Parts: sequence; C-alpha cells; structure tokens
Amino acid sequence: MNYSKITIGNEPRVELHDSLKLTGAEVSVNALPAGASVPFVHSHKNNEEIYAVIEGKGHAVIDGETVSLSAGDWLRIAPKAKRQFFAAADDGIKYICIQVKENSLEGYTMTDAVV
Amino acid sequence: MNYSKITIGNEPRVELHDSLKLTGAEVSVNALPAGASVPFVHSHKNNEEIYAVIEGKGHAVIDGETVSLSAGDWLRIAPKAKRQFFAAADDGIKYICIQVKENSLEGYTMTDAVV
Repeated sequence: MNYSKITIGNEPRVELHDSLKLTGAEVSVNALPAGASVPFVHSHKNNEEIYAVIEGKGHAVIDGETVSLSAGDWLRIAPKAKRQFFAAADDGIKYICIQVKENSLEGYTMTDAVV
Repeated sequence: MNYSKITIGNEPRVELHDSLKLTGAEVSVNALPAGASVPFVHSHKNNEEIYAVIEGKGHAVIDGETVSLSAGDWLRIAPKAKRQFFAAADDGIKYICIQVKENSLEGYTMTDAVV
C-alpha cells in the first residue's frame, strides 16, 4: 500500500512518525493550555524544525529572543538554536512541529513531481 | 539569525520553502473551495508527501482508491503513488502538504534533541 492515514483529535501531544510510517520527517501535533509551557529548553543536533500555529496564541523564546505567535504563523528554526514554547496567559496554543534533517531536501515541486 | 518567521492568511496556496528558508522540506498551505479539485494527478520521483487536513472536508484519490478526508486527518503518501485532491461538493478543504526526501530522516526527538 502506497499510503497510510490516521485521524487525530484533541490529544495534548501526538507523534506521527511511527503511526504514519514516515521516513523523511517526524511530525508532532501539540496543544498547550493557557498559562502552560513546554517544561524545558531544547536544541537539535541535525534537525531543522518547522512550526505552524494552528489555533490560539503564545510565544517562543529562541536564543533568548521572544517571538510572538498566533494562528497563521510559521517558524523555521535552525538545529543549534535554543528554543522553548509557551501558551499565552489567557489563551491556549495548538501547533504542529515538523522535524527534518537540515539540508536533506533536493528537488521539490516542479523538479520532483511527475504530472 | 537562527530562525525565520512568516504569517499567512487565507491565500488559496502558499509555498513556504523560499520565504521560510527551508532546507529539509517544502511545505505548502492549500485551500480548495467546495466542488473544486487540484486539476491534475501527480506523483513524485523522490519525495514522500505528508498531508494534514486543517479545516473542512473532501477526498483524495490515491492509485485509484478514494480516501475520505476531514479535519484531523493525516496522510503519508509514498513518492510513486498517483494522487489527486478534491474538496467536498458542499464544503471546502484546507490542508498542509509537506514534501520531504524519502528515507532522509536519521535521528529525531530523543536521539536528535539536546535538552
């Protein structure tokens, strides 16, 4: 079979790599309630992270800089950057995090597609 | 600077690779109004595609099989699969498409993170 499908609900965190049989990315869907944060700062050895804010608002602290976040915002964060995510005091935040190996993409769209 | 940020609205299609300076993925955000479809079938040479349905409903046809789609559904599609996406007759569909090179991910999360 050339595809896999799953349906997710309102879980606080879902990791998709194993359930979707991903081979080029790990993807997680995350929800933080108002006033909450990821309880640690982290960086990466080799992976670029791409974040999409789907609902709500909050902020990230990236290498000590505060970056405001609300629905419709997208971030690309380099592996070595130190990052931490926070929901707003008065609103939760739901976001997707995509981990991919930095510099791994070769062709894409018109140079990789066959129509 | 170790990050980039953009904000997107309700455009029919936004491609993020260049604006976010992505190196491991291409990501697009797509909206099809009720009754519309992507006007072609396509496959890929090397890239796995990961689709997330954010709003609405519709279906995909993957290698001739119809797969129903609604908000909360995620798909992983192998490069060679022939695919086409459709909004429902009575509802639009908004989805994210992530292109990554198949088999490019090495470590992730606990094996790539530094806490």
